Amino acid sequence: MIAQTPPMGWNSWDCYGSAVTEEAVLQNAEYMASVLKPYGWEYIVVDIQWSRANASDHSYEAFADLTMDEYGRLLPAVNRFPSAAGGAGFRPLADAVHALGLKFGIHIMRGLPRMAAHLRLPIADSSCFCHTAADPHSVCAWNPDMYGLRCGTEDAAAYYRSIFRLYASWGVDFVKCDDIAREYPQCEREIELISEACRSCGRDMVLSLSPGPAPLDRAEHLKKYANMWRITDDFWDDWKLLKAMFERAEKWCIHAGPGHWPDADMLPVGAVRQCEDPENRSCFTPAELRTMMTLWCMMRSPLMIGGEMTKNDGETLALLTNGDLLEILRESWSAHPLRTLPEESVWIAPRRDGRGFYAALFNLGSRRRTVSLTAQEAEVASLSGKELWSGKPVRTAGAVRVSLAPHDAAVFLLRQGG
Amino acid sequence: MIAQTPPMGWNSWDCYGSAVTEEAVLQNAEYMASVLKPYGWEYIVVDIQWSRANASDHSYEAFADLTMDEYGRLLPAVNRFPSAAGGAGFRPLADAVHALGLKFGIHIMRGLPRMAAHLRLPIADSSCFCHTAADPHSVCAWNPDMYGLRCGTEDAAAYYRSIFRLYASWGVDFVKCDDIAREYPQCEREIELISEACRSCGRDMVLSLSPGPAPLDRAEHLKKYANMWRITDDFWDDWKLLKAMFERAEKWCIHAGPGHWPDADMLPVGAVRQCEDPENRSCFTPAELRTMMTLWCMMRSPLMIGGEMTKNDGETLALLTNGDLLEILRESWSAHPLRTLPEESVWIAPRRDGRGFYAALFNLGSRRRTVSLTAQEAEVASLSGKELWSGKPVRTAGAVRVSLAPHDAAVFLLRQGG
Amino acid sequence: MIAQTPPMGWNSWDCYGSAVTEEAVLQNAEYMASVLKPYGWEYIVVDIQWSRANASDHSYEAFADLTMDEYGRLLPAVNRFPSAAGGAGFRPLADAVHALGLKFGIHIMRGLPRMAAHLRLPIADSSCFCHTAADPHSVCAWNPDMYGLRCGTEDAAAYYRSIFRLYASWGVDFVKCDDIAREYPQCEREIELISEACRSCGRDMVLSLSPGPAPLDRAEHLKKYANMWRITDDFWDDWKLLKAMFERAEKWCIHAGPGHWPDADMLPVGAVRQCEDPENRSCFTPAELRTMMTLWCMMRSPLMIGGEMTKNDGETLALLTNGDLLEILRESWSAHPLRTLPEESVWIAPRRDGRGFYAALFNLGSRRRTVSLTAQEAEVASLSGKELWSGKPVRTAGAVRVSLAPHDAAVFLLRQGG
Amino acid sequence: MIAQTPPMGWNSWDCYGSAVTEEAVLQNAEYMASVLKPYGWEYIVVDIQWSRANASDHSYEAFADLTMDEYGRLLPAVNRFPSAAGGAGFRPLADAVHALGLKFGIHIMRGLPRMAAHLRLPIADSSCFCHTAADPHSVCAWNPDMYGLRCGTEDAAAYYRSIFRLYASWGVDFVKCDDIAREYPQCEREIELISEACRSCGRDMVLSLSPGPAPLDRAEHLKKYANMWRITDDFWDDWKLLKAMFERAEKWCIHAGPGHWPDADMLPVGAVRQCEDPENRSCFTPAELRTMMTLWCMMRSPLMIGGEMTKNDGETLALLTNGDLLEILRESWSAHPLRTLPEESVWIAPRRDGRGFYAALFNLGSRRRTVSLTAQEAEVASLSGKELWSGKPVRTAGAVRVSLAPHDAAVFLLRQGG
Repeated sequence: MIAQTPPMGWNSWDCYGSAVTEEAVLQNAEYMASVLKPYGWEYIVVDIQWSRANASDHSYEAFADLTMDEYGRLLPAVNRFPSAAGGAGFRPLADAVHALGLKFGIHIMRGLPRMAAHLRLPIADSSCFCHTAADPHSVCAWNPDMYGLRCGTEDAAAYYRSIFRLYASWGVDFVKCDDIAREYPQCEREIELISEACRSCGRDMVLSLSPGPAPLDRAEHLKKYANMWRITDDFWDDWKLLKAMFERAEKWCIHAGPGHWPDADMLPVGAVRQCEDPENRSCFTPAELRTMMTLWCMMRSPLMIGGEMTKNDGETLALLTNGDLLEILRESWSAHPLRTLPEESVWIAPRRDGRGFYAALFNLGSRRRTVSLTAQEAEVASLSGKELWSGKPVRTAGAVRVSLAPHDAAVFLLRQGG
Repeated sequence: MIAQTPPMGWNSWDCYGSAVTEEAVLQNAEYMASVLKPYGWEYIVVDIQWSRANASDHSYEAFADLTMDEYGRLLPAVNRFPSAAGGAGFRPLADAVHALGLKFGIHIMRGLPRMAAHLRLPIADSSCFCHTAADPHSVCAWNPDMYGLRCGTEDAAAYYRSIFRLYASWGVDFVKCDDIAREYPQCEREIELISEACRSCGRDMVLSLSPGPAPLDRAEHLKKYANMWRITDDFWDDWKLLKAMFERAEKWCIHAGPGHWPDADMLPVGAVRQCEDPENRSCFTPAELRTMMTLWCMMRSPLMIGGEMTKNDGETLALLTNGDLLEILRESWSAHPLRTLPEESVWIAPRRDGRGFYAALFNLGSRRRTVSLTAQEAEVASLSGKELWSGKPVRTAGAVRVSLAPHDAAVFLLRQGG
Repeated sequence: MIAQTPPMGWNSWDCYGSAVTEEAVLQNAEYMASVLKPYGWEYIVVDIQWSRANASDHSYEAFADLTMDEYGRLLPAVNRFPSAAGGAGFRPLADAVHALGLKFGIHIMRGLPRMAAHLRLPIADSSCFCHTAADPHSVCAWNPDMYGLRCGTEDAAAYYRSIFRLYASWGVDFVKCDDIAREYPQCEREIELISEACRSCGRDMVLSLSPGPAPLDRAEHLKKYANMWRITDDFWDDWKLLKAMFERAEKWCIHAGPGHWPDADMLPVGAVRQCEDPENRSCFTPAELRTMMTLWCMMRSPLMIGGEMTKNDGETLALLTNGDLLEILRESWSAHPLRTLPEESVWIAPRRDGRGFYAALFNLGSRRRTVSLTAQEAEVASLSGKELWSGKPVRTAGAVRVSLAPHDAAVFLLRQGG
Repeated sequence: MIAQTPPMGWNSWDCYGSAVTEEAVLQNAEYMASVLKPYGWEYIVVDIQWSRANASDHSYEAFADLTMDEYGRLLPAVNRFPSAAGGAGFRPLADAVHALGLKFGIHIMRGLPRMAAHLRLPIADSSCFCHTAADPHSVCAWNPDMYGLRCGTEDAAAYYRSIFRLYASWGVDFVKCDDIAREYPQCEREIELISEACRSCGRDMVLSLSPGPAPLDRAEHLKKYANMWRITDDFWDDWKLLKAMFERAEKWCIHAGPGHWPDADMLPVGAVRQCEDPENRSCFTPAELRTMMTLWCMMRSPLMIGGEMTKNDGETLALLTNGDLLEILRESWSAHPLRTLPEESVWIAPRRDGRGFYAALFNLGSRRRTVSLTAQEAEVASLSGKELWSGKPVRTAGAVRVSLAPHDAAVFLLRQGG
């Protein structure tokens, strides 16, 4: 099964915006292969606008020239991805990533390029056409490039099949499809078409849907047709957004499971926003970074690093290589909050192998605070285990109590005490 | 002042849809000039899609080729409007209509042609461009041709000025602008831009906004920037739509006045839907047609004939040439319903010259019904006058009472009895 | 017909709250009879809580002892209304008011006294009982005295008949029924029961419904069952409330007519809030008072003086005795705003006798402002007439223009100029 | 801690409505003590209207006479509860229940008896009064007996303390408080007052809140102040209600924990609605009963038997004495659905002791259906264990598959297979 546990990797958006280059992708892939791969990190994902030649930051451009083939399929801009020259597409870059023992992913927008419809281009391996596949009324609210498709037509299915076949030929392992998860019910059928094209293309690919928030009442549809989907709008290094994630996580936690993972978005750690300023670093404090990593692991969100990894400092690296913590992602299940109050939250997640459970304690307030979990709350006689950020052991018949700095977290592996 | 009283004319949509031709326009203009003009009818309006070569019915076509000039301004399709050949636009046709003593109007969509943006065409008499004027996210919900404009830019203002200058040079007297009246608040600024371009173009033009329903709470904005605006979605020859108009009319009646008229839409009388079937006639019964004409006149709605006029039969002609009735449009004011019940409605409208008042009595039910107006309701001691469809005199100290067939109406000119 | 024109009178609430006494009622009646009656003022209305012995201000008291008869009908508290002693009810006071040539009104609450239900009292002239008539779930949101009735029962109809028969025997001419106009649809049937009891009680009584805002979409129901109904919540001497009345007046103006008048509430003029402080006077400026009187007359609202009339100063008296202005109430119809903008409003109302029309110009802003009405807007060639507050004549072929202080108004009687 | 696991017991409503008697309570208590107690059943709860003498079915009576003491505290009606004679209250009945080794509960309504307020009774052990504690505007939507309290007053707190002290003196172990859980936010403070009075009364009492649905967004408030609260309106033996419970259970499952249990309402099993017809039996099929018991146990809802237990047949008894099933209530945690589709649902709940997990498979459709759980979904290599209704063992490396009749359920205790 694809995505039997939550996917872990790197995505170019947080550091390079619309302007990522082949060179940047490769240097991050090499870093991951040599430093992070032992901890489970494996996907390298090229985010939005790779077909636009003149991109330089996090914005979009109306009526931009996009590189595409004679069938209306977008191709990498050769000035930014030199190996794509001669119509090779992402095949050479995917090969390079695979050679490092990693997996390769790309971003797409729902729909087809507007110019392909206005030019009435044919659709590959079919008798269909872009202008009959495209819906002139279906436009993205924030990106000007594409028309959504008329999902009831054979032309639409043919177009999606044509692009996934191309991606399979390139060796793509992961597709992040954008402009599609928040806009239920309009996009419900389009999600199905894309999912069917993905699953029938001849290559295993993780299908990830954006942007959020996806609607909670469509959870079963998302679980059936996608491997991960965003539960919030874009997440950045801002405490308000991190605090708000607790409410989303609470609503979505019961829907995490093999092959289908609610996605709390990329981790804005380390050297983010490099396209705007190479000196820029994540605004999160060390405490907030611990809270983020702890919550993402407890809720089993996919983990996608957002920073330029080669600029990781020691603290960032430590954050991404805490094996005990990352084990939560693989070994827990049935996570949920015990309580979420304005000032604190406590989450719990049993291990599937019966060897105890994880408990995460969060200080959501702006003052130091003691947060606790009693044995009674955990329905055991006593508690023993260790804290996973500090490694400190704990053993008590009463309550695990921890004094937390503002926005900080602790997370324990516990069991009935001996 | 433009539109000092409600405009009266003919519009091509109800009979010809997207497919009206120069020949059809001219034959209707000639009919109007010779038969209807003495009753106040004067506008000849060419409705939507006149720039599309292959139109044949009431529908639109995605990614159609539209005739336009090198500045992204739409031109009449020459196969349908032969006199437009050689870049003459509607000038020759307008001249012909003017020669008949009538006025000439055209339909436009908010925005500019999509292809003009994708081709990055320049805007006439400016240093602006279509692709910077156009908003790729602003698309009409039902027509695929245009992009709305970025109203904060000089480019947008330049584009609207460029088209109204062109229309002035053609001799246009009336512009029906579509995709703009229902979608407040998004289109509020676009209405202002269009209104300013219209009023500064050097020629008097009535500005009519569609489609409806325009929002009642923007009445003052509409009164300031437009001469008429639709108060419902498209009106057709269907009793349910006619009955529903009573509620709209009640809400809007106080906003009718010189230069600004709530518009109940075209009159689907006589030979409508000719592009689908030349044998087709309005589905309204004679009673319903009387009700429609009576309500439109009482509320002082603009009157735009929808049928192919040369096919008018005697009854249709009688409907359009009742001088006593049409006088309501010019001589009344302050109209409003006295009551609107599920089965009946009574409207009243004083004459401005103090010579009595109009009272319209409607049977909205499906059975014959006596509808009445008492002298007490009218706040006079007694009533005398005549019914305007039949010419029958009336004089009573009690109540005007009329037995009406289902969906029928009577309308009286009354005064304090002698 | 009752209330053929809008009722004019005095109501005790604004000056005496829940605590009005017989003495206060009589002194106001005598004043009205001698000073105001020639101008059309005629109703003297005793507002809420006249059955409660210990009332002293504008508030209510939970579980208060209310004076009632053995049939659960409220009676005047004898300490406050000495002439009611011996079960005489309001008969002696009504007689005294009638002897002055005036009419007498009282306030009631929807429903019956809670204690009458708990005590299971019988209903007069019937075999019904209060505890089967009362609905224990129907309680007023702001007054603790009553239970609403189970409108489907004969007991409910019997109770309402029993109280209106009692009021008829007292000589009541006007009933203001409270807790009933805002709470559609729950109270729709209760309005009908009360209306039927009122109309069948053997005496003509104006039926007035409170509090507001009554729902606009129930206008026809209100017109059928009541003579006047409140269109806002309680109105007081506060500019924000007065300015907000323009929007309500605009929505309701078309529903004013013989027997049914949208009610803008009492006029807080002169010595209001006397129960709290005998020195208190209306906070409205002279300009605001003119605006209020002008709007109420133009929209043909009932006029109910709120202040202790014997303390009227000259300005207040002038306000209430402008015969030209009060004539609008009787001689106009079909009033409506020409426009209502944030800073100004212009209303127009034809005279029914054809002798011109009224035009009111309001400055709603906080700076001096020139407000105008053009002959073109009024659809005449020229204008002549006079301003009704100043008596100043006007004659123009262009526009009536008036410079107004903040919150001030002018009102003209105009006709086609000579 | 009170209610460390979900309370189990019997409640009189489903079988006796408003009309339960001491005799019926005792016969059910004796049955429970002798037959069900070994399986964990222990609470005997007297539901609504025990202070009303003439109750006979499931309805209420407006303005009924309720038995109360001189402090406005309701007492059992002596004709129905003879042991309450002489002001003994429920003390003798509670003693009798305790003597059987069981616990005793009663129902109360939020507020105080309306008559106590109208009579201005004093509040016990205080200088407060019922008429200042009561809020005349706070009345229950469906029961006519009480006024809610003015929660900001000391009088309100004094009244609630006075009743809980009385209940403590009677020996009450469980209070079901009604008219309070659905009506957030109005009742939020009243819940707090009642909870504080309950916790400070000197005796451990479970506090249960009704009716539902309580609002999900107040979950933390409910968890803090109550031991259980209803998540739906009244539940009866109707498949539509049972199917709808799956959605509620999904939303609430993460909030179940020691001391605070979302409550799916009484179990309408066996001889329900005895006050209407002694021959009446639950309309649920055996399959539906299994589904109900399985879902209630998986979600760890409190279990309250609704039928007259002495009339249990063998099937009903088997349903209530499946020890393996009832163990889920005590030994699982972190339950949640894996999926809930229109036709099927699968729930999972780990055991806290690490000895595997429970999996429940439901057929929600109207046709026989095979429902399955794969090892992959459960994130194990293989599965072994047994089904708890049939006792049948299961062992597989693929999927547990079960063919289920319409509306039927199976529930397994599983672990990583050997």
